[in-house]
Order: sequence, then structure tokens, then C-alpha cells
Amino acid sequence: MTHPKHYEDQPHIKLTEEAYLSVLRALANEPEALGRLLADIHPADIADLIERLPRHERGIILSHIPYEHLGDVVAELEEGVQAHVLRLLRPEEVRHAIAELESDDAADMAQVVEELADDTGPDAEDLLDDGETKQLLTYAEDTAGAMMQLEVFTAKPTQTATELLGYLRDSADDMPNNPGTVFVVDGERKLLGTVSLHRLVKAPLAASMESIMRREPLTVNPTTNSDEVIQIFEKYDLHNLAVVEVDGTLLGRITIDDVLDTVQANAAYVQAAAAGVDESEDLFAPVSETTRHRLPWLGINLITAIAAAAVIALFENSIAQLTTLAVLMPIVASMGGNATTQTQTVIIRGLALGQITKQNAWALLKKEFMAGGYIGTILALVMAIGVGLLYGNWMLALVIALATVANHLIAAAAGWFTPLLLKRFNYDPAISTGVITTTFTDVGGFFVFLGLATLLLL
Amino acid sequence: MTHPKHYEDQPHIKLTEEAYLSVLRALANEPEALGRLLADIHPADIADLIERLPRHERGIILSHIPYEHLGDVVAELEEGVQAHVLRLLRPEEVRHAIAELESDDAADMAQVVEELADDTGPDAEDLLDDGETKQLLTYAEDTAGAMMQLEVFTAKPTQTATELLGYLRDSADDMPNNPGTVFVVDGERKLLGTVSLHRLVKAPLAASMESIMRREPLTVNPTTNSDEVIQIFEKYDLHNLAVVEVDGTLLGRITIDDVLDTVQANAAYVQAAAAGVDESEDLFAPVSETTRHRLPWLGINLITAIAAAAVIALFENSIAQLTTLAVLMPIVASMGGNATTQTQTVIIRGLALGQITKQNAWALLKKEFMAGGYIGTILALVMAIGVGLLYGNWMLALVIALATVANHLIAAAAGWFTPLLLKRFNYDPAISTGVITTTFTDVGGFFVFLGLATLLLL
Repeated sequence: MTHPKHYEDQPHIKLTEEAYLSVLRALANEPEALGRLLADIHPADIADLIERLPRHERGIILSHIPYEHLGDVVAELEEGVQAHVLRLLRPEEVRHAIAELESDDAADMAQVVEELADDTGPDAEDLLDDGETKQLLTYAEDTAGAMMQLEVFTAKPTQTATELLGYLRDSADDMPNNPGTVFVVDGERKLLGTVSLHRLVKAPLAASMESIMRREPLTVNPTTNSDEVIQIFEKYDLHNLAVVEVDGTLLGRITIDDVLDTVQANAAYVQAAAAGVDESEDLFAPVSETTRHRLPWLGINLITAIAAAAVIALFENSIAQLTTLAVLMPIVASMGGNATTQTQTVIIRGLALGQITKQNAWALLKKEFMAGGYIGTILALVMAIGVGLLYGNWMLALVIALATVANHLIAAAAGWFTPLLLKRFNYDPAISTGVITTTFTDVGGFFVFLGLATLLLL
Repeated sequence: MTHPKHYEDQPHIKLTEEAYLSVLRALANEPEALGRLLADIHPADIADLIERLPRHERGIILSHIPYEHLGDVVAELEEGVQAHVLRLLRPEEVRHAIAELESDDAADMAQVVEELADDTGPDAEDLLDDGETKQLLTYAEDTAGAMMQLEVFTAKPTQTATELLGYLRDSADDMPNNPGTVFVVDGERKLLGTVSLHRLVKAPLAASMESIMRREPLTVNPTTNSDEVIQIFEKYDLHNLAVVEVDGTLLGRITIDDVLDTVQANAAYVQAAAAGVDESEDLFAPVSETTRHRLPWLGINLITAIAAAAVIALFENSIAQLTTLAVLMPIVASMGGNATTQTQTVIIRGLALGQITKQNAWALLKKEFMAGGYIGTILALVMAIGVGLLYGNWMLALVIALATVANHLIAAAAGWFTPLLLKRFNYDPAISTGVITTTFTDVGGFFVFLGLATLLLL
């Protein structure tokens, strides 16, 4: 998120512990002092402050934010808190906040407002003044189109460095806050090349854009997946990336600070989704909302837990004959669960980095199998000796050892094929792998251990 | 990582599937063609290629990389693969690779080489030509000092925009690839202010740096934690951040592309550490190395699994009387484990974002307790009805219901206090919370369920 120009001169003030406590004091005792306190705090820090406050205190802060900072404060909020705050604002305040933002942030916020509103509320389109900005609403989340901003600095191929530098100086106010890169386009706005700002500054004054531009620059289409955009930025150390139509027409640009935001947001999303919580969950969301977000995931896990229990139920007679089996069975299952988490972590990361290909996937399975067998054998020996010494039953020791090795092989196989399969069917392996693999190691662990015990001991 | 200037003009070539397969074919059939193929591929893409190859094929690629790209290729490799590759290179190749890099990357690589070498190998200091670059070796990992580069563009406060623009044009070759920001310093190199490149370009030609610089810019010290650096970049949308001594002397700068790299590296580290795998694990590391990395974590988990088993052992008599207890007990424990993961995910994220403070921590516990009780009650009802109908034993249904609610309260409490406690003692909650909380819900789940059953049923 780039701040509009009116912040450029404002010093960056960090929200010190002291400033935070002053605001809390003012909130409790003299709300009329809030306006003065908040005027000195950076919008991003005001956003932080709001996120820390219980819901009933947020409205008071909101009503004291300097009006020209409102858009920035709301844009900086975490999604869940943002939704709450947008519902607290009056319609004209929302409209004002959106008008203050750059195109990408404006479109995002308009969309959030639309989603929050009931059917009689405003459409996102109504909230945006500009036709081009409205266009941004049409791109799906997780695409380059959704990450792009329309504010770009374009030039003709025949323009010289002198002309452009003069133009930048004279029309400074119309420019994006950080132009970053000059996009060189022809008469039909087809992208011909790019000139970074530092390249422009270093170039001879008489040089034409055509002569100094990077030809065939890397570009993406608005439908390019955001993960791919992130990889391109990281790999080629870009600061600006052009978004073009399939025919080469320049649409907008993606900036590295938006990429940084997206990276952090994606990481938070994956972590939240893997645990079955809402990634935008406001810390102080009402309990009913929290329950609604968290319950479905627990329901899925209940089904997998019942599957594991069903396997145990198959062997209830064996447990009745030797209750020690009930004591030891969770160890076998749990060690398998941890081992499969290790394998899948390595595989998921390899997939994310594009290191795993059709050509090397089998070699990787072989390696994980060998590692699983090796690690399983070491743990099996430790457990067999422990069980043998504790219970004096060396046949039981053999059973737990065999089951441990077998479950580590199951763990290796599940940790390898589950993420590959999910990826193959376009699911994000980082989110759903865990619940599937641990079902395998739970069901597998109980089955192998109790099954071997029934065969060999009873 | 910023590429040295000689790549500036090289078009960015993506490693297409086609190019990848050509290299694989050449590798198998005509290694002499490799040099020609690799000359056209971007160093970052050659690094990708090496990461995908099994270890025995990497040396052949290495020997065909254009010599002037060697440093960049090696710098772009993942840590584990980088270690392997550095061992394959001759000492003079390593020295050459390091000399090609910018100060921060050069210092990083020198350090890796030192760590890999036996006692007779080179020290990191010997590998760096420049005294200031050697200084970079003294900063601890995870600090601003370790993220910083020395290449900065400084100016005197009295210099004008014309002078600086002229200087940039004339001495373009001595400049960092992307100067980004002008750091205005006094005669003793004390930082007075900053002027971003776009601000310099927009300024009137006669304006002095003093008149256009941002005074009191945000700075960090070399000992500032890298997490704090990342937060500052994100929050204030910076592209360059000055690193200064406590007395204000300018040491270097941190750039947003290095921040992006650090963010990704940290995320990978946390994921790997939480699963107990080495974050730099080369996909094709030897099995012995993989075992050494993964076994300690499984050892810790073995201890927690034994703790849970010990609780079950306390109630072996109860299980002997009613083996159905053995069937149902993993369900109670496993649901608690999933619930505590949900709570801790929200708390860990809140801590990372600085949203949780002394003032609101208790309100949060109350909220999590209420959510846990609510969710636990819903699940308890589902399970009680299922158990009652299946076994016709409504007392057993009551036991599983009570145990489920109790374990969800344990889950909420553990998911709340564990990350707060770890953070309090300066451990990263994202890494170690899971193993602790699930021990609570396993031990707690077994104990409450089997204990209640013993009290109420037998």
C-alpha cells in the first residue's frame, strides 16, 4: 500500500508504548484530547491501535481520526477489524475514505464494503468514481489484476531523458507518489519497454527512451496467479512489474511493496486455513462468529477421529485380552503423525519453490522411504527395548517395533503423495495436507499395531 | 539480493519447461552443449535448475556456468543446496564468486564457506577483500546489521539537485545498481536526512538537499531484530531504511528486496522448525543427514507420547472392565488437539502483529474460554447422541460429553497461555507452541475421559 502524497512530508512516528498508554488514558478519562493525540500518530499506527482495542472502544477512536487520514487508517487494518470498522462508519465517511486511496486499495475497500452490505447497500461500483478503477473490480482475487494499480508513468519512445525529467518536475502533483519505472508505450498503449527511474537519472540527457529502455521486459497478464507474480519479483529482484493484456496493451503495474503485503497476507491465510480458523479473524470477534468459523474444521476432524476409533473397535477383543495394547497404541500413531509432518513439510516447500518435477519425484519418494525406514528402525529399537524391559514381554516388544517401522513407511508415502496429489488437482497442499496424512498415520498406526498384536500375541 | 550492474542489460529469461528439458537432454547426451544453453539462462533460473537436480548431476552444470555469473548463481541457491555446491567448487572459484557480489551477499557467502570448511579451511575474513565488508561479519544473524548492505549513495546537505543528478550521470558505474535513496550526512557521516530518488527527480534543480530532505527519518541500529525491520518496512511502506550507529553515524542501508527475501526465508524457517526439519534441507540430502536433522524432534515427541501413554496406564483396570473406553479415548484427545491449534494460531498471529498487549490479554482469555466452551458443548452433544445411540449406554454418553467440554476448555487455556509464555521468555511461539499444547490436550483428554469414566461408570 502506498500512501497518497499528502503524507510524504509527515515524519514517521512510531507508536511508542508511551503514546499507546496516553491514548488509553484519554479514552478512559478525557476523550476530547484524543483528536490532538491522534493527529501526531501515523495512520498505520492508528490502525494498530484500533486492532488492539476491544470492539466497544473502537468507535470513539474512529470519530477522532483526522478526516484526511481516515482512508489510510482503514486501509491499513487487518481484514476482520476492517470489516468491523467499516460497519461503524457513516456512508459518506466510507465514500470519503475510498476516494483518498490509490486505485488498488480503493477497489479492494469498495469490494469489502459491498460484501458487508445487505442487498440494499451500495455496490462496489457505486463507491468508485473512476471508470478504470471500476475495471479493477472484475479481476479475481489471487490474480495479478487484483494486485495491480492503475497509476503508471508512461512515455513515448522518442521522448528524451531531459523531457521526462522536466515533465516529472513540472507535474509532480499528478504523478504517482513513487513512479518507480517509466513504461514506454506506443500510440496504442502497447508496452515497448521499461526504464527504471535510476536508469533514467543515469542516462545522458539527450538519450531517447527507445535507446535506453529494457526491451522485452518481463510482464504478466491480469489473470496471472499471484503466487507466480511473487515468485517473479523474488527471483528477478524487481521493484515494478508491468501488467499487460494478452495483446501487449499496458494496464497497470504491480509494486514491490504490494508484493510484500501479499506475501505476508498469503502466509497468514495458509496458517489460518490449515488450522481451520478464519484468516481475518478479529481477536475480539463475537463468540458466535468465532464458533461459526472454527466449527466446520473440527467437524471434519471429528470424522477422521471416528475413522481411527472404528479401527480400534475392530480389535476390541484383543484389547480386552491385553489392555497394555490400549496404552501403547497412541505412541505408534502419534510418532507416525510427527514423521509424516516432517516429510510433507519438505515436499510442500519443494513444490512451492518449483524444485519438484515429474523427472525427480520418484527419486524423492525413494529417498523419503529410505529416511522413513531408517528413522523408524531407530525409534523402533528404542521402543522395543523400553517395552521389553518394562513389561518383560519381548514378543510385545517385537510387535511395537514392527508396527513403528511400518507406520513410518506409511508416513513417508503419505507425506509424499498427498501434497503431490493435491497440487495435481489444484488444491493448495499447504492447507489440506496435514489432515489427510495424519488420518493415514492414525488409522495405519492403530491397524498395524493392533493387527500385528492379534496375529502374533493372542 | 540485487544483481551487480553487468546484468542490468540482460533480458530476464524465464526457465521454460522447454529450456529445462533441453538442459536435461544435453546433460544426458551432449554435455558440451551445456555452456551455450546456460549462457542464455538467467542466473536465478540456473540456480533453480541446480536445485531440481540430484546431487551427482550438479557438478556438470556448475562447470558450464558462464564464469561471470557464478557468484549470482550460487547466491541464489537455497541454503542446503548452496552448501553442497560450495563444496564442489575449487577455492579460487569460491573466491571469484564472492568477489562478484554486493557486500551483504558477499559477507553471507563468506560465512557459509567458513562454516563448511574444516579447521584448516579459509576464514570468512580471508575471503573478503574489503575491510568494511569484513565488518559485516560481526553482526548476529536476525539483526539489521546482517541484512544491511554497505553500498549507499550519500550527499552533503548543501548539495543541490542539479549537482547530484549530474554526479549520478557522470559516475554511473561507481553507483549501487539501484541507489534508491540519497542519504544526507554531515562531515562526520552522521545521518541528517533522506531524499528518495523520486523526490530528488521532482525537486527544483536549485534546491539543496537540506531543503528537500526528510528530517528525522526512521532508522534502525545494526542490533535491531530483523522482525522489527520487517515490520517497519511493511507498516510504513519503505523501500530503503538507513542503518545507523547509536550516535547517528550512517553504516549502510536495508533495501526492500532484501526484506522480501528475509520474509520468505523466515516463513520457511518457522515452518521447518515447527515440524523439526532443517529449514535448509536439500531435497536430495543423503539419508544420514536427513535422519540427523529429523530424529531429535521425533525424540521429543516420543517423550510427550509416553507421557500420554502413562496416563492411560493409570486407568488400565477401567479399560479392562469396559474396552469401549479405549475406542473412544482418542476422539476426545484428538478433538482437543485440533481446538488448541485453532486458538494458538489466532494468538500467535496476534502476537506477531503486536495486537496483544498486557491490557487486552485477559479479555482475550475470556473470549477464548467462552468460544472453547461453546464449541466444546456443540461437539459434546453430537458425540453424546452418537455414543448413546450406538452403545445404548447414556451414562457413557454423558462421560464423553463432559470430557469433551473439559478438554476444549483445557485447549483454550493451553492455546492462550503457551504462546504468551514462550514469547515472554523470548522463544518464538510459532515454532514450539504446538508440541506443548497438544501434550496438554492429549494428557488432559485421556485423563479427564478415563477419570470421569472410572468415577461415574465403574
